[in-house]
Amino acid sequence: MRLLLINGTVVNVFTCETERADVLIENEKIIGVGDYADEKADIVRDVRGKFICPGLIDGHIHIESSMLLPGEFARAAVCHGTTAVVADPHEIANVCGTDGIEYMLESSEGLPLTVYLTLPSCVPATRFDEAGATLGAKDLDPFYDHPRIIGLGEVMDYPGVVAGDPGLNEKIKFAAAHHAIINGHAPLLTGKGLDRYISMGIRDDHECTSAEEAKERIRKGQWVMIRQGTAARNLEALLPLFDEPWSHRCLLVCDDKHPADLMANGHIDDIIRQSVRAGKDPLIGIRMATIQAAEHFGLRDLGAVAPGYWADLLVLDDLDTVAVRDVYHHGVIVAENGMVADWKAPPVREELDKKVRGSFRLSALSEEDFRIDGDGVKKCRVIGLIKNELLTDEQIANIDFKVHNGIDPDRDLLKVAVVERHSNSGHIGLGFISGTGLKHGAIASSVSHDSHNLIIIGTDEKDMAVAGNRIRELGGGCCVADNGKIISEMPLPVAGLMTDESAAVIAEQNASLRESVYTLGVPRDLEPFMSMAFVSLPVIPHIKMTTKGLVDVDRQRRVSLFAEEE
Amino acid sequence: MRLLLINGTVVNVFTCETERADVLIENEKIIGVGDYADEKADIVRDVRGKFICPGLIDGHIHIESSMLLPGEFARAAVCHGTTAVVADPHEIANVCGTDGIEYMLESSEGLPLTVYLTLPSCVPATRFDEAGATLGAKDLDPFYDHPRIIGLGEVMDYPGVVAGDPGLNEKIKFAAAHHAIINGHAPLLTGKGLDRYISMGIRDDHECTSAEEAKERIRKGQWVMIRQGTAARNLEALLPLFDEPWSHRCLLVCDDKHPADLMANGHIDDIIRQSVRAGKDPLIGIRMATIQAAEHFGLRDLGAVAPGYWADLLVLDDLDTVAVRDVYHHGVIVAENGMVADWKAPPVREELDKKVRGSFRLSALSEEDFRIDGDGVKKCRVIGLIKNELLTDEQIANIDFKVHNGIDPDRDLLKVAVVERHSNSGHIGLGFISGTGLKHGAIASSVSHDSHNLIIIGTDEKDMAVAGNRIRELGGGCCVADNGKIISEMPLPVAGLMTDESAAVIAEQNASLRESVYTLGVPRDLEPFMSMAFVSLPVIPHIKMTTKGLVDVDRQRRVSLFAEEE
Repeated sequence: MRLLLINGTVVNVFTCETERADVLIENEKIIGVGDYADEKADIVRDVRGKFICPGLIDGHIHIESSMLLPGEFARAAVCHGTTAVVADPHEIANVCGTDGIEYMLESSEGLPLTVYLTLPSCVPATRFDEAGATLGAKDLDPFYDHPRIIGLGEVMDYPGVVAGDPGLNEKIKFAAAHHAIINGHAPLLTGKGLDRYISMGIRDDHECTSAEEAKERIRKGQWVMIRQGTAARNLEALLPLFDEPWSHRCLLVCDDKHPADLMANGHIDDIIRQSVRAGKDPLIGIRMATIQAAEHFGLRDLGAVAPGYWADLLVLDDLDTVAVRDVYHHGVIVAENGMVADWKAPPVREELDKKVRGSFRLSALSEEDFRIDGDGVKKCRVIGLIKNELLTDEQIANIDFKVHNGIDPDRDLLKVAVVERHSNSGHIGLGFISGTGLKHGAIASSVSHDSHNLIIIGTDEKDMAVAGNRIRELGGGCCVADNGKIISEMPLPVAGLMTDESAAVIAEQNASLRESVYTLGVPRDLEPFMSMAFVSLPVIPHIKMTTKGLVDVDRQRRVSLFAEEE
Repeated sequence: MRLLLINGTVVNVFTCETERADVLIENEKIIGVGDYADEKADIVRDVRGKFICPGLIDGHIHIESSMLLPGEFARAAVCHGTTAVVADPHEIANVCGTDGIEYMLESSEGLPLTVYLTLPSCVPATRFDEAGATLGAKDLDPFYDHPRIIGLGEVMDYPGVVAGDPGLNEKIKFAAAHHAIINGHAPLLTGKGLDRYISMGIRDDHECTSAEEAKERIRKGQWVMIRQGTAARNLEALLPLFDEPWSHRCLLVCDDKHPADLMANGHIDDIIRQSVRAGKDPLIGIRMATIQAAEHFGLRDLGAVAPGYWADLLVLDDLDTVAVRDVYHHGVIVAENGMVADWKAPPVREELDKKVRGSFRLSALSEEDFRIDGDGVKKCRVIGLIKNELLTDEQIANIDFKVHNGIDPDRDLLKVAVVERHSNSGHIGLGFISGTGLKHGAIASSVSHDSHNLIIIGTDEKDMAVAGNRIRELGGGCCVADNGKIISEMPLPVAGLMTDESAAVIAEQNASLRESVYTLGVPRDLEPFMSMAFVSLPVIPHIKMTTKGLVDVDRQRRVSLFAEEE
């Protein structure tokens, strides 16, 4: 099969030039760039007046956070010009262990977007977590033989690295032995601590929130992944990196991307578009998201319109707006003017599919499960949500257990429960939370970083049980209960994290879920499910709820609900 | 072991900045760059007022062409700041096959300069060659498991690549399967032919002789190796590549480097020095010769003064003159102010050592072996040397075989013989050559690209036999005979290519060899042994002598000595 694009203007990512040229493709690869108009080909397309640019690469994303299966994620991302991603299946691995990694590999095989994976390095995230699996170096090692496994995923436990944690060291050593890239995640680490961390061979970071922080990383040999996702948005702060001498050591990544945002605004194309609006040259952004991403990960035939490279390429109507018209993946047109070609979903082994869909091991919940053993008025530690941040405050409140077991919506003091759901241990962490503004009912979710236990916030134990039981029945998802009934839900049957539906359907379900929460009193400027998803992650300060109760993140220790106890 | 360099000015190859910093080294690697003056260390060195720069990397060299064993090469190169080379053992492989590759691996193990090897892709160089071995893809394949084998060496047979030669294709496919770099060698190839060549995954070239040629390569995704060796010197023509946007895709290499030149002028340091004299920023040259070389070859911990990198570093007195003061390799000082530390020569297995030293399989030669069967006056094809070029002219001369079997020093018509010496086949190619200016005696050499048969040029068959037999006795080398006696010689017992002596000794032997040739009539502006070394290489136009007679390189066919025959 020969495909010939004639009369285009080719974006050269090696030189940041554009040049008039034809592009000749044989089977999956580019074999000629230049004057090929007279060449014979099975398909000839005249792209006069348009730009031919390499397909875009997202250097770091968690597909699970889109709530879409890899195939549906691809369907939504491809028409925005994404032809490859480096995905860290950290979320599903916390639920299903190596089965989760295998599932992501199988369900992303042969997609119109190449899905490379890195191996989750921190499962579980902390010693306080009750995750669905514990992954050691030896569990991960066999995966490096897979051609799409290209690295060790973000090494988040940087205190562990700096302190020389032996388990972590072993994972890093194994990755290095396979010449795999080791991804970093060390926000605000600087100076000697950063040197120590980078010394382990950790060669990138996607957590930089200021140009100064990023510049230190680049000087020390790390590649900086400029992150602009749905939640964390660092582009504006990192715009100086588009200038010399920094731009050659940067990539563009999303980390997390929600389906509505993906559909409405785009993906990596949107980051480049935003950079252009801020006055930067689109060729710099394109170079970051193509050849630089490929070279950082050692993917030799990816990221350029040049002979011998994969024919992953975009036809753009315009460079400044990165207006993606056609998308080719390995020489096949996969999107055309916003329409995505159909393809067969990759077959996943039946027993594997069953495993990831049977991730809930939990007995039915009753009202009683949510009662806290307390009497009279007690000083309690309360988790204080901060609007649209992942940080929480520790607040101290007088809780009167005689009235509604302490729940007081008027004072915005609600109950929060984290229910272990991987091994039916019966562990339920209980406490109080403020900041949601919920006045009635309860909300529940199985998307609860990083262990993805069942988290429930409620004004009433009965509604908490109703909501929790519905998630249990669905095998995962989010829902809202009021007056003993489910009023809104979004099923996430795959590992409790992903849907079988398309981006459009899940975006709609998500929107209606939010609407129903707002009718229960939550203010419209709050994303309650997003906030709730991080209430159980004891790596983010200051106080979090786990299946075994509260954790003081700053002191890295469990603490009692009762403020007068330790 | 901890080593601390304090108060230096560090050259940052990621940003092309220099910055005041201390460098902390633990064992073989750098673990900190910054404010470490108070840190405890076993050795502390104050390098105030000096620059700390990564060790220099030669991205493409044939160590055999220095006539030095790897250990002695290292001794001569290290004090010029070279801490790693990528060497193609193409010469020894043409003589000894895989034994030659193994010998180069063993004899370069643990040197104070890391020797990476690429596997010779074209042994023999052409179908006209009678080399000591034929290396197929399956012969090379097992070597890729060696940690210092990092690529497939220069693919010189570009007509073969473009035409899809199956043996070559297989070698390229095997290299790609091992994620090994595939080095190019395709002088003057351009346009569609170049696209076809690069499409095979050939990602660099060191044969560019003009900036325009190099720019086409860079646009098409190749890395350009700017070559400035002893013989081929392309720096001046390629100086525009030190500017944007080209400089990020270039390396510095020598290809061939003779010992006298190495000692007198330096190595990669000298290329940077020359570029600075031509007005270029030394930081650009340093970046090319450090991080860029390392990243091109996928050597992740090499080429920078940054945490996690090998402590291969230089202390420079001055940046513009690249004045190398101290050299550290893997954290150990190996050269200090021009003095090189001693080290134990790497042990080589005895049987392997025997093999490479017993590379001559040839019976004694007699005067009669050099007589051409001809009578009367015949029009003959004569190889015309062009001063200090590798190209030769085809000349037609009337040769009177009745007088001295056609030899006529007055008309500068001498005899040339190429004697097969690998398998004692008795094949001797005989003919005439002009352009050396030799008036008496004969010269002989076993350095004769690429097959390294025995080549002899003489004014007299007796002296030709004397010279040839001396090389045979020595097991390789170069010598000059006159009046039936050897008047000068340089033994090269290892594969007929390399000496056991140091750079200083071999340079002296080489100088005295040249002096004796000049006394026999060769003009002083000619390098007769260098010219002679390429008389037998049927890839360089226009006419060459092989063990089976003349080859017309342009038509790629054997031709008769007699011009009236084909």
